Amino acid sequence: MIKANLRSDNNAGVCPEILEAMIAEAHRKGDSYGRDSHSTELNRAFSELFEREVQVIPVASGTAANALALRMMAPSYGMVLCSDVAHIGTDEAGAPEFFNAGCKLAPLPSVMGKLTSATVTSYLEMSDVTSINRSRPSVLSLTEVTERGTIYTVDEIASLCASAKAHNLSIHMDGARFANAVSALDESPADLTWRQGVDVLCFGATKNGAMYAEAIILFRPDSSVEYELFAKQSGHVLSKRRFISVQLLTMIQDGLWLKNGKTANAKAALLATRLESCSNVKIVYPVQANEVFFSAPPDIIDKLNRDGHGFQARPFDGRNKLVRTVAAFDTTEADIEAFVCSVASES
Amino acid sequence: MIKANLRSDNNAGVCPEILEAMIAEAHRKGDSYGRDSHSTELNRAFSELFEREVQVIPVASGTAANALALRMMAPSYGMVLCSDVAHIGTDEAGAPEFFNAGCKLAPLPSVMGKLTSATVTSYLEMSDVTSINRSRPSVLSLTEVTERGTIYTVDEIASLCASAKAHNLSIHMDGARFANAVSALDESPADLTWRQGVDVLCFGATKNGAMYAEAIILFRPDSSVEYELFAKQSGHVLSKRRFISVQLLTMIQDGLWLKNGKTANAKAALLATRLESCSNVKIVYPVQANEVFFSAPPDIIDKLNRDGHGFQARPFDGRNKLVRTVAAFDTTEADIEAFVCSVASES
Amino acid sequence: MIKANLRSDNNAGVCPEILEAMIAEAHRKGDSYGRDSHSTELNRAFSELFEREVQVIPVASGTAANALALRMMAPSYGMVLCSDVAHIGTDEAGAPEFFNAGCKLAPLPSVMGKLTSATVTSYLEMSDVTSINRSRPSVLSLTEVTERGTIYTVDEIASLCASAKAHNLSIHMDGARFANAVSALDESPADLTWRQGVDVLCFGATKNGAMYAEAIILFRPDSSVEYELFAKQSGHVLSKRRFISVQLLTMIQDGLWLKNGKTANAKAALLATRLESCSNVKIVYPVQANEVFFSAPPDIIDKLNRDGHGFQARPFDGRNKLVRTVAAFDTTEADIEAFVCSVASES
Amino acid sequence: MIKANLRSDNNAGVCPEILEAMIAEAHRKGDSYGRDSHSTELNRAFSELFEREVQVIPVASGTAANALALRMMAPSYGMVLCSDVAHIGTDEAGAPEFFNAGCKLAPLPSVMGKLTSATVTSYLEMSDVTSINRSRPSVLSLTEVTERGTIYTVDEIASLCASAKAHNLSIHMDGARFANAVSALDESPADLTWRQGVDVLCFGATKNGAMYAEAIILFRPDSSVEYELFAKQSGHVLSKRRFISVQLLTMIQDGLWLKNGKTANAKAALLATRLESCSNVKIVYPVQANEVFFSAPPDIIDKLNRDGHGFQARPFDGRNKLVRTVAAFDTTEADIEAFVCSVASES
Repeated sequence: MIKANLRSDNNAGVCPEILEAMIAEAHRKGDSYGRDSHSTELNRAFSELFEREVQVIPVASGTAANALALRMMAPSYGMVLCSDVAHIGTDEAGAPEFFNAGCKLAPLPSVMGKLTSATVTSYLEMSDVTSINRSRPSVLSLTEVTERGTIYTVDEIASLCASAKAHNLSIHMDGARFANAVSALDESPADLTWRQGVDVLCFGATKNGAMYAEAIILFRPDSSVEYELFAKQSGHVLSKRRFISVQLLTMIQDGLWLKNGKTANAKAALLATRLESCSNVKIVYPVQANEVFFSAPPDIIDKLNRDGHGFQARPFDGRNKLVRTVAAFDTTEADIEAFVCSVASES
Repeated sequence: MIKANLRSDNNAGVCPEILEAMIAEAHRKGDSYGRDSHSTELNRAFSELFEREVQVIPVASGTAANALALRMMAPSYGMVLCSDVAHIGTDEAGAPEFFNAGCKLAPLPSVMGKLTSATVTSYLEMSDVTSINRSRPSVLSLTEVTERGTIYTVDEIASLCASAKAHNLSIHMDGARFANAVSALDESPADLTWRQGVDVLCFGATKNGAMYAEAIILFRPDSSVEYELFAKQSGHVLSKRRFISVQLLTMIQDGLWLKNGKTANAKAALLATRLESCSNVKIVYPVQANEVFFSAPPDIIDKLNRDGHGFQARPFDGRNKLVRTVAAFDTTEADIEAFVCSVASES
Repeated sequence: MIKANLRSDNNAGVCPEILEAMIAEAHRKGDSYGRDSHSTELNRAFSELFEREVQVIPVASGTAANALALRMMAPSYGMVLCSDVAHIGTDEAGAPEFFNAGCKLAPLPSVMGKLTSATVTSYLEMSDVTSINRSRPSVLSLTEVTERGTIYTVDEIASLCASAKAHNLSIHMDGARFANAVSALDESPADLTWRQGVDVLCFGATKNGAMYAEAIILFRPDSSVEYELFAKQSGHVLSKRRFISVQLLTMIQDGLWLKNGKTANAKAALLATRLESCSNVKIVYPVQANEVFFSAPPDIIDKLNRDGHGFQARPFDGRNKLVRTVAAFDTTEADIEAFVCSVASES
Repeated sequence: MIKANLRSDNNAGVCPEILEAMIAEAHRKGDSYGRDSHSTELNRAFSELFEREVQVIPVASGTAANALALRMMAPSYGMVLCSDVAHIGTDEAGAPEFFNAGCKLAPLPSVMGKLTSATVTSYLEMSDVTSINRSRPSVLSLTEVTERGTIYTVDEIASLCASAKAHNLSIHMDGARFANAVSALDESPADLTWRQGVDVLCFGATKNGAMYAEAIILFRPDSSVEYELFAKQSGHVLSKRRFISVQLLTMIQDGLWLKNGKTANAKAALLATRLESCSNVKIVYPVQANEVFFSAPPDIIDKLNRDGHGFQARPFDGRNKLVRTVAAFDTTEADIEAFVCSVASES
């Protein structure tokens, strides 16, 4: 019987196009520390994708990408506003605070994983930016797709950016699942980011079919040299960086990233549709990208575990758990059916 | 004509055995953050290799491995003794100092890249460990193979460790090219490390045919949980860690690491032999592993550059430069011949 | 007309006994960096006061005391639980996060400035201490007197410590106004601290009539050497430390600290009594120590400002402000009368 | 018999003018965190002294002043060039490295405590500022008076600043004994600092008769707000800052700082003259300010210890020790005579 691993999209394999490019690269020698031909191509390729001049810092982990960016964006006495479910605050073991000693995160209340500009404005208006005793709000961090599987629209991003910029904050976007958002919204990457005011995007590829590849995209004429030196001293300039760069280039070539994103989104949609017909479980957040959150009673959790499926469960409502399932580029219909079958058999 | 890339062993490709294992893994799903079957196998496999119980933290870069280890080994008011040519001091852009805010490196004079126990003892005896104003010597860091291509013998390591431990220091070994040392000396990994007093070894694989794989090996019952949490907050717990782990496991399986090390060493020996017959260049340090350092006049440097060979050159003696060449597992005899041919044609 | 400065007890002068001791010291030479006779007397004197062996680190600011202590108590991947109004979180501009890069504060909901053990237990039970992605709860920080002017009883401290220790946390007490608490409760310093489980107390003197003197009191056999080295490297070992030490010794001699605390508390009580008879203002938190919080409409705020009184006001309920007034050892009845007179004239 | 405490000028008392001003302040209330009338007067008073607009950050310790300044002046991947005997490198237990995680000191060879511009230029020309692996030289730090009691002339400072600025470094001056230098050279403070290119001066007062007072002087239009916020988060904004400010204002009023400096210098000169007539001891460095370094055999060291005099001794030449003696504003001729008498009786 099929055991569906829906625990996270980082449990997936590597998509064939990327693997093939890596294999080709593995048979070659190449310059180290970003002097190779793939790495030096990154700025051009991503500038084309984003319809403006950008600078790209390729790193191996999403935590590194976020923490590096926030370190460069906020002073040590700064404060990063984010949602109360933001990955940077809940799941990175203090990485932003480690990279930028003294900097605080300010988790603001969210709804379905999203911040509103009203919440941001209200917080900023209440902040005392004259006292020597108070950290200074410096950055607004948005996650797109959010940690609840929902997606900020272009208008929502515009409004949030405007609220933050009215108080001189910079905007960081954690785009670990940016591909899922772009392919779901059918908006241009530029419209979802810098055109609304995003200053730095952490563009994720690992969850979307790469092996280890994330790109920090600088939309302003930042000094990428400073980023690189800081990346080096935090251990994030890999000597064989070319293998990260080739993953990133392949990912954005011929729309592979959107294809993979769409595939994962479609599987999540299928799962949602199928779960809706199961009594006893209830979908909790709108399914807009590749994640499905549903509540389930203990016997269903037990059954899913017994059947060997992968998923996350956390305390929710009374005896019920909140289950998170995530589809990836390599999730199959058979996976979905097997998973739903386990749910249904206990419902 | 062949352009030999001897700039560094991190300019090499990926060796076939490791690539094959990675490809197999790429077609599978697997648990993230080290819960996969490869990662959980690391402790056992390396314990066998080192003939004692060890704990393994797999990371993607050598700088990360060294900086993480030194952070865990020294207090913030500590001092890490190392040679004046140590990679941790000269080529990591302050990574050890960043990971461990306040900690200092103390570069001691070296000969042919090596520290002597007399130097270490003398420094420690002169250190004031009673004043509140002085950093405390806490760790001795040795590089094996050294940054000058020489190798500490077992006796030298024993003596250095004894000197340091007499003053309660811990011992760190930067083993970016540990495979080259072990295969050259024909000693056991245990004899070169913990049996002499080494507490933590950074076991390199990237320079030896892996794509991105380094292992921090803890020889004492350290809490690997603390290492992991700190690795996470510095961005060094990759979500798809299994791809690092599979590289490391493959590397130490069936002696692949020693085979690759021997191959590279042999190519360096060949290069050294061939260069000895070239007038005008002069080998500067004993060639004991996979690196050959030689002095060369400007016209030879120019010729090597014109012919497109890869190497490093730095100021040396008058107009002469010091050239560093490094052989890797995939360096060919043809590479060597092409390189020597360029040298000879100008000599 | 008298302008009452009730803005904070750190707006006070220096009490005569301490000033006299400082003057005597100013006419002498003395050893530096804590080797003087006053500094070396601190451990004995505070051990007597606390009825057990303690170690004392004297520093010049309360922020330094708290941040140093928390740095030594929590690992970088740790989390410090505190109330949502804790001074360490709201008024130290990120000092705890700066001293301990990576460490987070977890602000928990409080009532009248106080945490309950139920809140602490519930938070700890919900914490995932197995995931590599989560910071580890490490320290519970209590403020005594709280930031709302209320005082934890011995039983409350006992209960909070028990809840925290059940999950292996250490206990930090921010005692910037510890003297006010002890003199109000009429409990022994020991009963309010280590006998209930407090591990480290930051014993404040500056707000209680000293010029610049705070003592970190270590109740466990911590290595004060490590504290001192870290204090040095954060710039907090003053060369003429003896002037801090003589303030601390004088403060605890013959119960001066409790006398000053009682005086300030009595003035706050007087103010509270007098304000209760003013219509239009309303005391908001129980007045247990030397602070009085009351709500007041804009015209009263304006009048107080016009009359030149010192106080803090922040947004509260609709148009009303929350006013904080703090009495010190040198607050006079005339100050209180002048302040109340201004309030009453607008009520 | 008189026991002369010549161990350091931080073993001195507090000079009468400053003590008097502190006592007056102690009887008053005053605003906290630098909003008081003394603190707000600092910029004006020091601007007048330095003949240009400056910003002043008053702190309690010299280590804090230096570490704060260097943190603001250098990036984390930066390098601070200093002499190999610089206090910031040898006697601050890693404070500069703690305040600025990742930043390195580069100790350069000095003669009689002084750097030369040739040494600085040569180091900078050899530095690779293109490699991602190398820290970037960012600041030159000069100590005036040097740690060997010698004084840089205006021309030497000009030349050193020019060498550093040619490579885009900023200039920091550790002026713990700046008063001794200015009063010895009879140059204006401006000529010794910003007119030659110094960007930030740490102006010491503690060693010159204050109790705890150092001023960071910013010569460029730096954002003092950023300095203050960082000072706060490192625990260096004292709540009763007014007591530091009043010390600084009194110190520079009516030339008190120069009077104290001259007095101390004169006592050192007297000591030097008297020692010259003692056989068996030999003055080692030119006596230009308030420090006298001399070599002495063990029996003299023993005699000085037996007689209870204060001084520092460290290993020197064979059995001889290097003795450092420091005169302060309150060193008396009787102290000098008593000290010399002890030396002479063994010579």
